[in-house]
Amino acid sequence: MTAPLILHEDRLFPAEPSARSVARALYGEVSGVPIISPHGHTDPQWFATNDAFANAADLLLAPDHYLYRMLYSQGVSLEALGVPAHGRPSTADPREAWRLFAANQPLFRGTPSAMWLDHVFSTVFGFTTRLSPETADSHFDAIGEALATEPFRPRALFERFNIELLATTEGPQERLVHHHAIRDSGWTGRVVTAYRPDPVIDAEHEQFGPALELFANLTGQDVHDWQGYLEAHRIRRAAFADVGATSTDHGHPTAATADLSPVEAEALFRAVIAGDVSPARAELFRAQMLTEMARMSLDDGLVMQIHPGSFRNHNRMLFEGYGRDKGADIPMATDYVRALKPLLDRFGNDPRLSVIVFTLDETAYSRELAPLAGHYPCLKLGPAWWFHDSPEGMRRFREQTTETAGFYNTVGFNDDTRAFLSIPARHDVARRVDCGFLARLVTEHRLDIDEAREVAVDLAYNLPKRAYKL
Amino acid sequence: MTAPLILHEDRLFPAEPSARSVARALYGEVSGVPIISPHGHTDPQWFATNDAFANAADLLLAPDHYLYRMLYSQGVSLEALGVPAHGRPSTADPREAWRLFAANQPLFRGTPSAMWLDHVFSTVFGFTTRLSPETADSHFDAIGEALATEPFRPRALFERFNIELLATTEGPQERLVHHHAIRDSGWTGRVVTAYRPDPVIDAEHEQFGPALELFANLTGQDVHDWQGYLEAHRIRRAAFADVGATSTDHGHPTAATADLSPVEAEALFRAVIAGDVSPARAELFRAQMLTEMARMSLDDGLVMQIHPGSFRNHNRMLFEGYGRDKGADIPMATDYVRALKPLLDRFGNDPRLSVIVFTLDETAYSRELAPLAGHYPCLKLGPAWWFHDSPEGMRRFREQTTETAGFYNTVGFNDDTRAFLSIPARHDVARRVDCGFLARLVTEHRLDIDEAREVAVDLAYNLPKRAYKL
Amino acid sequence: MTAPLILHEDRLFPAEPSARSVARALYGEVSGVPIISPHGHTDPQWFATNDAFANAADLLLAPDHYLYRMLYSQGVSLEALGVPAHGRPSTADPREAWRLFAANQPLFRGTPSAMWLDHVFSTVFGFTTRLSPETADSHFDAIGEALATEPFRPRALFERFNIELLATTEGPQERLVHHHAIRDSGWTGRVVTAYRPDPVIDAEHEQFGPALELFANLTGQDVHDWQGYLEAHRIRRAAFADVGATSTDHGHPTAATADLSPVEAEALFRAVIAGDVSPARAELFRAQMLTEMARMSLDDGLVMQIHPGSFRNHNRMLFEGYGRDKGADIPMATDYVRALKPLLDRFGNDPRLSVIVFTLDETAYSRELAPLAGHYPCLKLGPAWWFHDSPEGMRRFREQTTETAGFYNTVGFNDDTRAFLSIPARHDVARRVDCGFLARLVTEHRLDIDEAREVAVDLAYNLPKRAYKL
Repeated sequence: MTAPLILHEDRLFPAEPSARSVARALYGEVSGVPIISPHGHTDPQWFATNDAFANAADLLLAPDHYLYRMLYSQGVSLEALGVPAHGRPSTADPREAWRLFAANQPLFRGTPSAMWLDHVFSTVFGFTTRLSPETADSHFDAIGEALATEPFRPRALFERFNIELLATTEGPQERLVHHHAIRDSGWTGRVVTAYRPDPVIDAEHEQFGPALELFANLTGQDVHDWQGYLEAHRIRRAAFADVGATSTDHGHPTAATADLSPVEAEALFRAVIAGDVSPARAELFRAQMLTEMARMSLDDGLVMQIHPGSFRNHNRMLFEGYGRDKGADIPMATDYVRALKPLLDRFGNDPRLSVIVFTLDETAYSRELAPLAGHYPCLKLGPAWWFHDSPEGMRRFREQTTETAGFYNTVGFNDDTRAFLSIPARHDVARRVDCGFLARLVTEHRLDIDEAREVAVDLAYNLPKRAYKL
Repeated sequence: MTAPLILHEDRLFPAEPSARSVARALYGEVSGVPIISPHGHTDPQWFATNDAFANAADLLLAPDHYLYRMLYSQGVSLEALGVPAHGRPSTADPREAWRLFAANQPLFRGTPSAMWLDHVFSTVFGFTTRLSPETADSHFDAIGEALATEPFRPRALFERFNIELLATTEGPQERLVHHHAIRDSGWTGRVVTAYRPDPVIDAEHEQFGPALELFANLTGQDVHDWQGYLEAHRIRRAAFADVGATSTDHGHPTAATADLSPVEAEALFRAVIAGDVSPARAELFRAQMLTEMARMSLDDGLVMQIHPGSFRNHNRMLFEGYGRDKGADIPMATDYVRALKPLLDRFGNDPRLSVIVFTLDETAYSRELAPLAGHYPCLKLGPAWWFHDSPEGMRRFREQTTETAGFYNTVGFNDDTRAFLSIPARHDVARRVDCGFLARLVTEHRLDIDEAREVAVDLAYNLPKRAYKL
Repeated sequence: MTAPLILHEDRLFPAEPSARSVARALYGEVSGVPIISPHGHTDPQWFATNDAFANAADLLLAPDHYLYRMLYSQGVSLEALGVPAHGRPSTADPREAWRLFAANQPLFRGTPSAMWLDHVFSTVFGFTTRLSPETADSHFDAIGEALATEPFRPRALFERFNIELLATTEGPQERLVHHHAIRDSGWTGRVVTAYRPDPVIDAEHEQFGPALELFANLTGQDVHDWQGYLEAHRIRRAAFADVGATSTDHGHPTAATADLSPVEAEALFRAVIAGDVSPARAELFRAQMLTEMARMSLDDGLVMQIHPGSFRNHNRMLFEGYGRDKGADIPMATDYVRALKPLLDRFGNDPRLSVIVFTLDETAYSRELAPLAGHYPCLKLGPAWWFHDSPEGMRRFREQTTETAGFYNTVGFNDDTRAFLSIPARHDVARRVDCGFLARLVTEHRLDIDEAREVAVDLAYNLPKRAYKL
């Protein structure tokens, strides 16, 4: 027997009837609002070429480390799931990979991945049965057939999803050809980039050397000279802004910032560029570069996003065999109070600067981030992120930040995903959880319903638009 | 249209009807109980002179960093809000500051500040409309008129608020003139002090030198001599006890304690007093002094309060321009297990000693503080504090401490506020949240209703009275 | 008046009626399932000799540090409670100790201890009134009379409790005489051991020297030689497996692991065994030994349990007077990301290895442990443990781990207790809390009821059986 797939209209709302009824009313205000996705990792090529997606496994499973890490944790090999190893495509049969995925669906019970997938199956493909060994083949076939049709091409889905803006993320060494192609194509969909300079800032990045070389080529600057290196950043930031970027993005191991004197900064740069890189020196250079980026933001207006706290590529064997971003990035305890002080001492009181801070360490919400964002004019809090982009994670975010930072020092939701089809699902979860949280405040008489209605729309639409200067 | 201001009688109670009904019953037991406020920062001069308060902005906005930090975080200047800078009063027009505050009310949605303000507006001033740009002037005028009348003088409000005891906080270098005046005035209101020796213990405090000099003058001791310095503490502690103090209060950056030999302690003191103060040495001296204070408490019976974990004056520019206590103190991760061990090794098993520990790092609740308080005879847990003096913060405190420490290793609520008018509001929030928590235990059959009734009254009244030896 | 003792059939379920009704249905699936207790600290002698327990105080109070630490925290002496000091039995009269305990029952309000005790009183002894000064004597007498009868002997209780398997914990220096006696007795109750080598691995353990000597005697190995020492472990692991052990257990201060070269490891061992033991060296040896234990597990199949993060014997005076395990172990902040990496780099991708990790630092649930367990094939998460073996603690565990690790990277519940009579109570609490959590997912339409039914049974029975290879 195949189990029915039903997206309940009250999903994620509190069970208590009075709170549910308020949540439903609030959700009515935001369910149809366009999606603003100011931070994510979709592939701009999809929208540039508008080619059809290949099949269910290649589209939904192989690129989504949320999914395959869970199967891997239970002993399923990445090879069998179609995840490409270093420099060579997987030889797995997509249908077999999909069957393996279907057979392991119980692993996802209670996870946001299950909710997102069900949302995709139901609203994008119209399925009425859950994925299981019995339905694996029919779902695989149905998805394959749909993807071959015009309404399932990337641009058509973008429009169907009611996306007002979608940002991708590129490095300074990238030529942005797809973004130029999108801009030049006449298509009205708004897909922009964001400036993520980690590969040319992080001397411990495995691509540091080659990325620097491309950075030099693209800018015509001597990037081995401190002033040339900074100028190259300015040039690329302008080039990114030219294809719509309104933000930069910094994925450092820690939130450390530094504010060295010009002489110290240049000496540090010389040592780093000469390959004399201890971990402490690499850290200090990343720290100094955040302050340099803030300085440039004051000139060109780009919003800074700081995403610290992940121990990248924790699984050595997997990193060596498969490369980065394979579900083996593990969060660490992260300090913000001391780490951000040098940057804040320099620019923290300037309301023209806008820095959005994220965390993977939820203990920082109430202890450090809400107090910082509830004080410094330049700081805003990014939403519950990555592992915490989930109903419980989002609930904790609101419960632990609102009382000190309020709603208006947060920036609404961003999906941060590579999984294009899941974008509406993720925004829907965020809107539902926020409406549920607001409903609790209303039923506990901590907020009036008219205020809650305004806040719901602000969280879903106005705050991200304002925070990212869209 | 002006929105109505309604304090719902069930505010802060759980929405679920059976839990709400239990919460309501429990709250009925405590809503009328007198307020014990054993720790706070009101100005004793108010009660000594009983002068009328000036106006809405000067009374409610300019001294309350909970309020103006939120506006500051959104780019509003402190100057415009009437916050006095270093050594010179603000030139802002109070009415204009109030209008600015009114226009930014949405920033406070979901915060305890909004609840406290609404409580003050409704119960103290009888307003029936919310503060907004439309009502800013009429509220300002109405408050101004009320403040000029006898029933709104400090002593009258104290009595109307049903305050049984209110403690302020003073330093060893202060002469306690207002407390003497209160005592000598014949007024029956009980306003006492608490001994906060930080300025003469913390060599990194900007007032350390001048405070020491006053400390010497007031005690006639050679405070540059270790024994004289200790004797000066004894003298001032006795003087504080003489105007009603039953406690000391220690606001150190960390919870570090030390138990040096007499020879080491004296050598450390000599170095510190000679100005040879590295951060580590200043820290060790603060640590040693906590143990010295505990030793004195065994003699004179004063209860110790330890409030660690705040990075004071984090915003350099603001500190330089406006001084301390301007909403820029940011919590840090705080260790208690290693930090308190030296003091506990020395005095921890002595039930005559009473040490109340607070935290700004909620991760310590279940991990460190509840296990410590649930074991050591001398330790009790202070309530959810400062940023966590809020509905969600108080709920987390109970959820994370009760199962290990029980209710009877906690000390009830204290408001810790400078905002006199908000005291009844804050105690009311605490009582409601505790009743809501107890109601959940009752409806989940984890506690019988007769037990819950006793606990509710203990938390609101008996525990603070016992813990602070009142 | 004596208060009635009622175990409500809906206790611990959410109050909201729809969630409660789902919880009740789910609990119906698991309430009768046999108990698997794969990790605990009961005394195997009870089951070997099957002697009657002595009296209420000796059985329920004196060995249970959950209970007496709470009384101690309020100034009651351990001596008066019948807790034996170092090497000499208490002289307290058991009835007097029991009366003291009865008089202090309010301290336990809201704690799991109260729930467990009530469960024991009600289901084991059939009491219908709460323990109080009024019922202290009658309860004491009734328990004493019951314990003298056949149905209250250890084996009879074991069977009545529907325990399918119970594991105790022994050290490598122990001869396992009781386990041999149990095996040879013909009794069908399954009581097995677990291999806890801390005393011969932790050079800071007060029994390290004597334990090593016994370890040598029992194995005939030269345990002062690195290869002999390792071989002695292999021999004892096999002996433990011979009396049913399927797991090892490691209670280290931290989760540190190391992967030294053979030469380095041997040099380290030599220094440690020669008594040249700095804290850092002791730590590194414990760290290396976890990796050695993992290597042996790949050979003999024993599941590893790692229990880090407790500051043992924090109360110096109590440790000196009463010894270890007296309620004075305090949790500390615990890192897993860096700590486990050396072991994981070596064996983490081998699905034959099974490592169950526990924590006392709840901040690691969502930040470190769920991401690690949701990725590495060898890792599983142990349940909410020790101080967190409680309704709120278990709820936080599920809320903070499920979305990233799912249910199937957890291992069900284990009671970890010395208090034999409380075992059914503890498993009942765990089942109820899990059913309550699942009920919330169901009523919020995050999980279908058919899935929830399967998960409930898996958590109560199938997962521990699989994780511990039973």
